[in-house]
Amino acid sequence: MSKLRKLTVLGLNSGTSMDGIDAAIFRIFPLEEKLEINAKRPAIGVESLHGELIPFDPIFREHLGKLIGSGQTSLKEICLLNAVLGELFAHAALTTIKGAGLTTDEIDLIGSHGLTVWHNPEADKLWGVATNGTLQLGEPSIIRERTGIPVVADFRPADMAAGGQGAPLVAFADQVLFSGNDTPCGVLNLGGIANITVIDASSQATMAFDSGPANAIIDYVCQLLFGLAFDNHGAIAARGKINEEWLSALLRHPYFARKPPKTTGRELFGQQFAQQAIDAANQMGISPEDTMTTLAALTGKSVAAAYADFIQPQISLKRLIVGGGGAENKFLISLIKKYWPHDLQVFTHEDFGISSKFKEALLFALLAYTSYFGIPNNVPACTGAKEYVCLGKVIGVTGRN
Amino acid sequence: MSKLRKLTVLGLNSGTSMDGIDAAIFRIFPLEEKLEINAKRPAIGVESLHGELIPFDPIFREHLGKLIGSGQTSLKEICLLNAVLGELFAHAALTTIKGAGLTTDEIDLIGSHGLTVWHNPEADKLWGVATNGTLQLGEPSIIRERTGIPVVADFRPADMAAGGQGAPLVAFADQVLFSGNDTPCGVLNLGGIANITVIDASSQATMAFDSGPANAIIDYVCQLLFGLAFDNHGAIAARGKINEEWLSALLRHPYFARKPPKTTGRELFGQQFAQQAIDAANQMGISPEDTMTTLAALTGKSVAAAYADFIQPQISLKRLIVGGGGAENKFLISLIKKYWPHDLQVFTHEDFGISSKFKEALLFALLAYTSYFGIPNNVPACTGAKEYVCLGKVIGVTGRN
Repeated sequence: MSKLRKLTVLGLNSGTSMDGIDAAIFRIFPLEEKLEINAKRPAIGVESLHGELIPFDPIFREHLGKLIGSGQTSLKEICLLNAVLGELFAHAALTTIKGAGLTTDEIDLIGSHGLTVWHNPEADKLWGVATNGTLQLGEPSIIRERTGIPVVADFRPADMAAGGQGAPLVAFADQVLFSGNDTPCGVLNLGGIANITVIDASSQATMAFDSGPANAIIDYVCQLLFGLAFDNHGAIAARGKINEEWLSALLRHPYFARKPPKTTGRELFGQQFAQQAIDAANQMGISPEDTMTTLAALTGKSVAAAYADFIQPQISLKRLIVGGGGAENKFLISLIKKYWPHDLQVFTHEDFGISSKFKEALLFALLAYTSYFGIPNNVPACTGAKEYVCLGKVIGVTGRN
Repeated sequence: MSKLRKLTVLGLNSGTSMDGIDAAIFRIFPLEEKLEINAKRPAIGVESLHGELIPFDPIFREHLGKLIGSGQTSLKEICLLNAVLGELFAHAALTTIKGAGLTTDEIDLIGSHGLTVWHNPEADKLWGVATNGTLQLGEPSIIRERTGIPVVADFRPADMAAGGQGAPLVAFADQVLFSGNDTPCGVLNLGGIANITVIDASSQATMAFDSGPANAIIDYVCQLLFGLAFDNHGAIAARGKINEEWLSALLRHPYFARKPPKTTGRELFGQQFAQQAIDAANQMGISPEDTMTTLAALTGKSVAAAYADFIQPQISLKRLIVGGGGAENKFLISLIKKYWPHDLQVFTHEDFGISSKFKEALLFALLAYTSYFGIPNNVPACTGAKEYVCLGKVIGVTGRN
């Protein structure tokens, strides 16, 4: 096994919210001088240098939303979009390097997730053949060429090839970042989708799955009903009342009852789901405020129910470390505490010195770093993979022997 | 620069004919003990071990043909197809290793091109943004997982990122394979598309481009008019007469007048072009035999015209080494000689000990081998790239330091 050393790594991600690209630079280093590489709990330290959120052009975002919303496309569109996204990721990398006051020579490695345009972790039929699959776009060869920096990219397929769901990948970062803390604990990300990682008393990530929707639905409905990009601190939702009948109906969606490992995305909880929710609320005569409140409760209750149904039977979590845009939604956090079956202490990533905004960028920097050194970095207990593998494809690393 | 050594490499390809997968195993080795790596003319030797052509299931092939013919798809279809093709490539690799009497432990590396579902070397508009792009499917992480062998895959994007057309990649193999022979010479591949590489007196590939259609049109029309997969030795075409008026009209397609570097594919010369040709022939009252003869002449004359217009002004080629399925079409070869502006000696790849059937598999084995050792392997003079780059993405090579 090759000797780990400190690298300066830039992580790139475009999340399910499709706002733009998160780019951040980290110094990543082994915590022990003679490190025994242990796939289950790599002792890796992280120092954050600089991060930027680079928004997509509104017209580009609109097209992207339509594409992912409808799922209909052409071979040519996918082909060209892969290249355009590659240029946008490269541009985001260069902007962030400049913003950090660094040069490309000072960055050792880039980890790029790309943009997930489709994720199909469960087998489906293609032309009569059962298969699963995943599709990330954002050509990494372009990132490599524009920056001159080696790139590791496209992390999901290797885990899926090994029988996993290719998600949630974040369990690896949670294990690295929170293994030194007071465990057991849960790590909850409230992005477009809500996902939770369980870290046990021995600092192993033992379970990680998507509980269901989070901001993907709340933001979309807030935009349509109130013309606002998101419900700041949950102020609108806090004004309304939960419609219990409708909430119960929403919670009957079959995804919530499915046992982990499970992951989801905008295919299930996207524009279509949100539009149907608005239509249903209209038919039931539910006010816009009450709609927002009930949809916030959908996230809050589905998170708590996921804990009660699938986690609590094995491990009791009294501490939850929350991140993602939803971590700033005070009303949503109060709902999660309300529905949690027992007392719960809620922390933020920032309480541990980690910027929640750049956590996904950090995840992909960590995955690139470990794959670069040949350290397996999927978490089979969380993705369902049969074995440990090194995620990603490497571009521009030469001089092997 | 790391030291080159002998590796056993398996090459995988699925060509524009969409018949199936070509898989072949080679021993690839440096020809000089202390090799000065020269990107322009790597002195690399090749020994062929075993090859197999693994056909696609007819139903799968039919779906694939429809997909690529129409260009219309969904995100889900592309996502699942990438995985299914990955499994098929992995299966082809394992079948070929077994057929060679080898085990996976005896194979050092796999080079996989994937299947080109769309190639857009010229800039086009996506959502108002001008971009080019290329899209190969056949998830290499699956090949890596099923075989346990490191994989280098997806070779076009790095050349395109460097300003090239991402094609023809074959110039690199032509340079390696024919550099020791009597040069200058032309290397002509008659696959679905016809492409020609020019090797100058100093054994450099100085030009390589697609002259236009070859079997993509001939085979499709033969299937429709005669119910045969292909015109064996050109026997049908040899029975008819060339309709000169229609041939002139066909040769007015703007692609033929465009200066190299240029590449094309089924987007221009595919099902749609073939169907229009049949309709035109019907309207003009041209018999099925004469249709076949004239379409053979379209390939023969467009190859010779490409030479006369774009190559002859710079270099005179009196020797042509022909490969691809069309090399066995005696009638087509006689047409190329007929239209060539001066005397021409025609050889086959087999005359030089190279199996034409497995030349593309060999190309991708050679590209994987050289990228693995960090040797640049695009040919900027042929693709139009601004610089030399290492093509491909590496999966499963660990232990860097």
